[in-house]
Amino acid sequence: KIYNMSKMNVSETGSDLKCLTSWVEMDESSDFSIDNIPFGVCSFPGTTNARPRCCTRLGDTVIDLSTLSEAGLFDVIDHLDSPTYTFSRDTLNNFMTHPKQVWADVRMRIIELLVSPTSCNALTPDARLRTNLPLQKTAFHDVSSENEYIQVQMHLPATIQDYTDFYSSREHATNVGTMFRDPANALNPNWTRLPVGYHGRSSSIFVSGHKVTRPCGQLQLNPTDASEGSEYGPSRLLDFELEVAFFVGGKPNPHGERLTMEQSSERIFGFVLMNDWSARDIQKFEYVPLGPFGSKNFATTISPWIITTMALEKYKCPTSYEAQEPIPLEYLQDKDYSSYDIELGVAIMSENTKEPVKVSKSNLRNLYWNAKQQLTHHSVTGCIMNPGDLLASGTISGSSTESLGSMLELSWKGTREVKLGPEVRKFLKDGDTVIMTGFAQKEGLGRVGFGCCSGKVFPYVSTSGNMPVLDSSNTTSDRYTDFKLYGYWRSSCTWRVHVALNCKSISFTHKEVDLLQEDQKKMEYADGVNPMKQVPVLECTDTVTGDRLRFTQSLPIIDFIEEAFSE
Amino acid sequence: KIYNMSKMNVSETGSDLKCLTSWVEMDESSDFSIDNIPFGVCSFPGTTNARPRCCTRLGDTVIDLSTLSEAGLFDVIDHLDSPTYTFSRDTLNNFMTHPKQVWADVRMRIIELLVSPTSCNALTPDARLRTNLPLQKTAFHDVSSENEYIQVQMHLPATIQDYTDFYSSREHATNVGTMFRDPANALNPNWTRLPVGYHGRSSSIFVSGHKVTRPCGQLQLNPTDASEGSEYGPSRLLDFELEVAFFVGGKPNPHGERLTMEQSSERIFGFVLMNDWSARDIQKFEYVPLGPFGSKNFATTISPWIITTMALEKYKCPTSYEAQEPIPLEYLQDKDYSSYDIELGVAIMSENTKEPVKVSKSNLRNLYWNAKQQLTHHSVTGCIMNPGDLLASGTISGSSTESLGSMLELSWKGTREVKLGPEVRKFLKDGDTVIMTGFAQKEGLGRVGFGCCSGKVFPYVSTSGNMPVLDSSNTTSDRYTDFKLYGYWRSSCTWRVHVALNCKSISFTHKEVDLLQEDQKKMEYADGVNPMKQVPVLECTDTVTGDRLRFTQSLPIIDFIEEAFSE
Repeated sequence: KIYNMSKMNVSETGSDLKCLTSWVEMDESSDFSIDNIPFGVCSFPGTTNARPRCCTRLGDTVIDLSTLSEAGLFDVIDHLDSPTYTFSRDTLNNFMTHPKQVWADVRMRIIELLVSPTSCNALTPDARLRTNLPLQKTAFHDVSSENEYIQVQMHLPATIQDYTDFYSSREHATNVGTMFRDPANALNPNWTRLPVGYHGRSSSIFVSGHKVTRPCGQLQLNPTDASEGSEYGPSRLLDFELEVAFFVGGKPNPHGERLTMEQSSERIFGFVLMNDWSARDIQKFEYVPLGPFGSKNFATTISPWIITTMALEKYKCPTSYEAQEPIPLEYLQDKDYSSYDIELGVAIMSENTKEPVKVSKSNLRNLYWNAKQQLTHHSVTGCIMNPGDLLASGTISGSSTESLGSMLELSWKGTREVKLGPEVRKFLKDGDTVIMTGFAQKEGLGRVGFGCCSGKVFPYVSTSGNMPVLDSSNTTSDRYTDFKLYGYWRSSCTWRVHVALNCKSISFTHKEVDLLQEDQKKMEYADGVNPMKQVPVLECTDTVTGDRLRFTQSLPIIDFIEEAFSE
Repeated sequence: KIYNMSKMNVSETGSDLKCLTSWVEMDESSDFSIDNIPFGVCSFPGTTNARPRCCTRLGDTVIDLSTLSEAGLFDVIDHLDSPTYTFSRDTLNNFMTHPKQVWADVRMRIIELLVSPTSCNALTPDARLRTNLPLQKTAFHDVSSENEYIQVQMHLPATIQDYTDFYSSREHATNVGTMFRDPANALNPNWTRLPVGYHGRSSSIFVSGHKVTRPCGQLQLNPTDASEGSEYGPSRLLDFELEVAFFVGGKPNPHGERLTMEQSSERIFGFVLMNDWSARDIQKFEYVPLGPFGSKNFATTISPWIITTMALEKYKCPTSYEAQEPIPLEYLQDKDYSSYDIELGVAIMSENTKEPVKVSKSNLRNLYWNAKQQLTHHSVTGCIMNPGDLLASGTISGSSTESLGSMLELSWKGTREVKLGPEVRKFLKDGDTVIMTGFAQKEGLGRVGFGCCSGKVFPYVSTSGNMPVLDSSNTTSDRYTDFKLYGYWRSSCTWRVHVALNCKSISFTHKEVDLLQEDQKKMEYADGVNPMKQVPVLECTDTVTGDRLRFTQSLPIIDFIEEAFSE
């Protein structure tokens, strides 16, 4: 039987699918409604599925696509030769390399499996997942905040060979031009003619939750005279930039052949939120004439779930600009000049108050150059665009003061204070956590949101002379502290973990669980520590997220230790 | 037995090894003397070794390291767990990830295997390769120009996630500053304080021999007034840039922790020549304020063999600058401020004359910031530096007029003509082949050269309206023409190739070799076509290099067809 979904026009999929509901229990306010169906890469430490694999998410349920494909639930998809091969990869690159029709088919297939049988729509619900409880047990992972046993780790969704950052918000470019150049000619002449951008650094792109170490670099001594030179030190003007980025999919264009606007449209896989961390003072001294370098290469954070263009289709909207003036050159003209109505927000949580305070509220429609135009322009020279490449929007600022997408603009170059509850900021302080959110919502449709993109600022790594003396709070191995091992002295599995902890010189407290006394079955342990009623269990605190983590089963525990203390 | 070479200090290896000679026949003027031992990745189409693997080269002999390691010849190396795994990879990334001592040990091991037994040196020659003729037959591939059966294809030596281009030649930066900004203040104040650089595009890095398509982009209408806008078209000011780049090796530094000068020194794997093709007119309109983008992302060519720091050690020399003034900040101070004495040359071959004419002669010592300083500065913000990352020098110009490393400087912004035999150039024309060479040579030492880094300019891919109409001479499938198949009607192997050619709609002429008449053993065929005296043989012309190619054995032939016509 050939799956006939692939015969549907991509733009049609979804239009008949209003008021969908799922049989999977979920909160209606969730970013991940059945109209969303994002793609990401997760691992489940402490389970037998500790290797990263491709997943989707519905409400607070992470769904392992490799497990579903092993059960044959994707066998009906045309042109996806081996779903199990594709979804058991530790990145989405293989899936992304397929044509857009395959992405759309897979998404619709997931909806068919998850939609409730009574949902009013043109689809035929498929009962094979709904009625298969053992399969649900393996494939579903609860990430609701009530679940104390969350064992889901998000990973970068793709191997990103090349990352490019554009500068496509007219308000942001105008603000920066006004502050640093000439208010009368804030926008350079090229800005309205092409999407200005620069190549960024891939090695420092991290998924939400990764720590951000304050960078060091050269800071100009006299702010008004660069010729007096610079000094070495940690950035004092650390900033966030609110951006949205998209992953390129499809087959690479041959070298020397540019993409048309229509081809670009087929090659946009989906979007993520991005915080393009920036060190304004490092940037100031270094950026003439070749652009930002160290000021941007220390960290870039993205949200872990990729929201597809199919999910966003229903949220297409005009940009904040009726039309582009001057009219772009022909290769950059978009007959369907549009954006997506995605509300964006930035909150900062100080280490003192532990209370996120909203500092900015913007919208994707504030971009002057859209994703199709960015991709088309990127390829105009014949540059090869590979699946997994990441292209970011640049800071998305709107025209009102509360819609500015960076501290540079919010504090107007440090001349205004930004309120943070009882505190104030001009730029970011150590201990600040920057939390970005984004979602699209409309009457009668499920919410399509991005989850969050968050990162916490850690102090710079101090150095003494030319030899770095590591601040002990900043080594990777110090991310996890306060280890506690539940075990029994006659359990060889417990000893296995014991040995691993000692190998890595990790100090820990031991909590004896007397198996002969059946301590493991007592409520205190079975409910509070390990419902599997087994030893060993390793607990530790993740200082980046503040979460208390709990791992079960000796081999996954050792995998975790090896990974966390590999450096 | 533990291989005691690994106990030798890296800097000592080589110092006692003067006047080495090899038992392998070679020309004394070869770039690839026994003092060199470069690393690269090759495949041997038309043989059973058609998958790319790691190789070295001595004179005109390419030596397959994966075959040597399968024979156990690297088993003695400490800290290289599985030589066969490492050298059978299709990139050098795995090898590069090892510590510098392992690179040095492998290099010395190769020298032991190749050095002639009578060579005057402190090494103990190992006879296991010299006396094993069958192993030589498998591992050695003759690439001398006399050999009509060359079946060696070079590949990118590593997967390059991130590529950075610096701007470290004082003369080049001064020349550019003089032309485009202010002759009185040609160098920006930051230039003497830090190695200015920008992140480049990895997807368009190709190995020598790849074609370079003239890029299209936005060209400023009025050269003196950007506000009049731009037009779309092929670059008219296509240029080369003479550069040297290095590959990073070793384990990545943890995020947030910079490299010291000493650590950087251990992380430089080796060097290649680089042509950083540039479109000056595209650059002019786009580059303010974020730096070059499309003007640089269409093609970058590197020489295929990586020349190690161990091989270059004996050619260390002072830079063209006694000392750096102003003294760099402490983190950038190099106690051993030095360079390598590598003579660099650029020649251009016009399609009309077919005669390369030297247009530039420079030297690596002309760089103000050396590789260690570039790498250290790159990591100062805590940026992760991965094995396989490529860092380029920027155009290497000297102080004399013949030592300028780009047409921009040689023609002084198009105001002077550069002689090319009977022709002249200001910038590059379609059909021009740019050939870069580099080598180090000293009395009593073997020559350590880079081979060549060449690329030919092809016309831009013409477009009609918004829809690209491919110039038929530019599709990948048209690279190879004039197919001729030698075969016999009763040979199933011949039919296999027949079918493959038909599948791809490739027209070809058939040349019957009557096996019953023993045509295959006749001199005409055995000497002129296939010394293995077998059918089928496929011949075709490579329009990029102009070479007539010949492939034997049906499966490798089909592999070639599949690869050449995959797009």
